Amino acid sequence: MSTPPRHHGAIVRAAAALFRRNGFAATGINEIVEVSGAPKGSLYHYFPDGKNQIAEAAIRFAGAGLVATMEKLEQEHDTAASMVRAYCKLLAGWMAKSGFRDGCPISTTLLEAAPQSVALTEAGREAFAGWCAVIARALVRDGFGKAEARRLATLTVSAIEGALILARVEASAAPIDDVAKSLVGALQFK
Amino acid sequence: MSTPPRHHGAIVRAAAALFRRNGFAATGINEIVEVSGAPKGSLYHYFPDGKNQIAEAAIRFAGAGLVATMEKLEQEHDTAASMVRAYCKLLAGWMAKSGFRDGCPISTTLLEAAPQSVALTEAGREAFAGWCAVIARALVRDGFGKAEARRLATLTVSAIEGALILARVEASAAPIDDVAKSLVGALQFK
Repeated sequence: MSTPPRHHGAIVRAAAALFRRNGFAATGINEIVEVSGAPKGSLYHYFPDGKNQIAEAAIRFAGAGLVATMEKLEQEHDTAASMVRAYCKLLAGWMAKSGFRDGCPISTTLLEAAPQSVALTEAGREAFAGWCAVIARALVRDGFGKAEARRLATLTVSAIEGALILARVEASAAPIDDVAKSLVGALQFK
Repeated sequence: MSTPPRHHGAIVRAAAALFRRNGFAATGINEIVEVSGAPKGSLYHYFPDGKNQIAEAAIRFAGAGLVATMEKLEQEHDTAASMVRAYCKLLAGWMAKSGFRDGCPISTTLLEAAPQSVALTEAGREAFAGWCAVIARALVRDGFGKAEARRLATLTVSAIEGALILARVEASAAPIDDVAKSLVGALQFK
C-alpha cells in the first residue's frame, strides 16, 4: 500500500509551521497529524524515526524556501543592500500578519536541539550556509572581496535572526526595520 | 516554616542554565530541582505557579547578569566598538567551553513562549531593552546621535543573538568572530 506523496509535503509543512510558532519540544506528533490533515499511518510511513526525522525534513524544507526567496530577490534587485532591505520588508509583513507569533522557521528547533541532534544540526548548518551564500554572492557582485562578503553575509543572517527574536518579544516589527536600516548602511560598497 | 533564601537563587540559576542548554519545554521541574540541589518543597514555596514563574525569574536573573557584564565592559573600554569586541570575545570563550551547547540564556525560552506568555515576554523585553541601553549610551558617548545609536544598538544585540544560533549549529565560534569584526566596522564613529 502506498501513501499519496502529497501527505509527505503536508506533514512537513504542518511541522515547520508548528515548530516555528510553538517550538520543537512543545509540538506533539498528534498535533502535526491534525494540522497536516494526513492520516496518522502516513506519518509513520514517511517518518518511521518520529519527530526528529520530521524536524530534519522541516528544516530542509524551510531552508530551501528561504534560499528560493532570496534568489528571487537577488534577481529583482541591483545591490545586496536593496535585496536585504526587500527581504526585511517581507519578514516584517509576515511577522505582523502572524501577530508576531511566527519567526524564523528553523531557529527555535535548532536552539532546542543543536548540537545534540547531529542530523538536525547538519540540516540547519546547510540552511544557513545556503542563505549566506546568496547574500555573499550579491555582495561580491557589488564589488566586495570574497572574505569581506562572507563576513557581511554572516552579519546579515545573524542580525535578521536576532531581529526576529526581538520582534516577537516586542510584538512589533520595529526591530526588523531598525536592523534593515543599519544593514543597508553596512552593506553599501564604498 | 521558612525556606533559606539561598534555595531561591539556586533554583533560578539551575533553571536558567537548563533552559539555555535544552530549551524551556524540554526542561522538567524535577530536573530543575535536581540540578539546583534545593528541596522540592522550596520550589513550590517560591514558585507556586510553576515553570512559567521560574522562567520569568530566570529571564530577569539572566538579563540582569547580562547588563552587569556590559556595564563592567563599558567602564573598561573607551569606545562602543571596543566594548562590543570584548563582549563577543567573552561569548566566544563561553560557547567553546560549553562545547557549543550553551548560548543566550533567554532567547530559546522566548522563542518558545513569546508572545503567548505575557509575563515571560515582558521580562524578555526588559532584558533586551537594558542590554540595548548600555550599548546605545556608549555609542552616544562616541559621538553618534540618539536615534542612530539606538538603531545600531538594536543591530548589535540582534547580530549577537543570531551569531549565538549559528555558533551552536556550526559548533564553532567563527560566526561570533565574524559578527564581531563586522560590528566593529559598523560602530566606528567617523
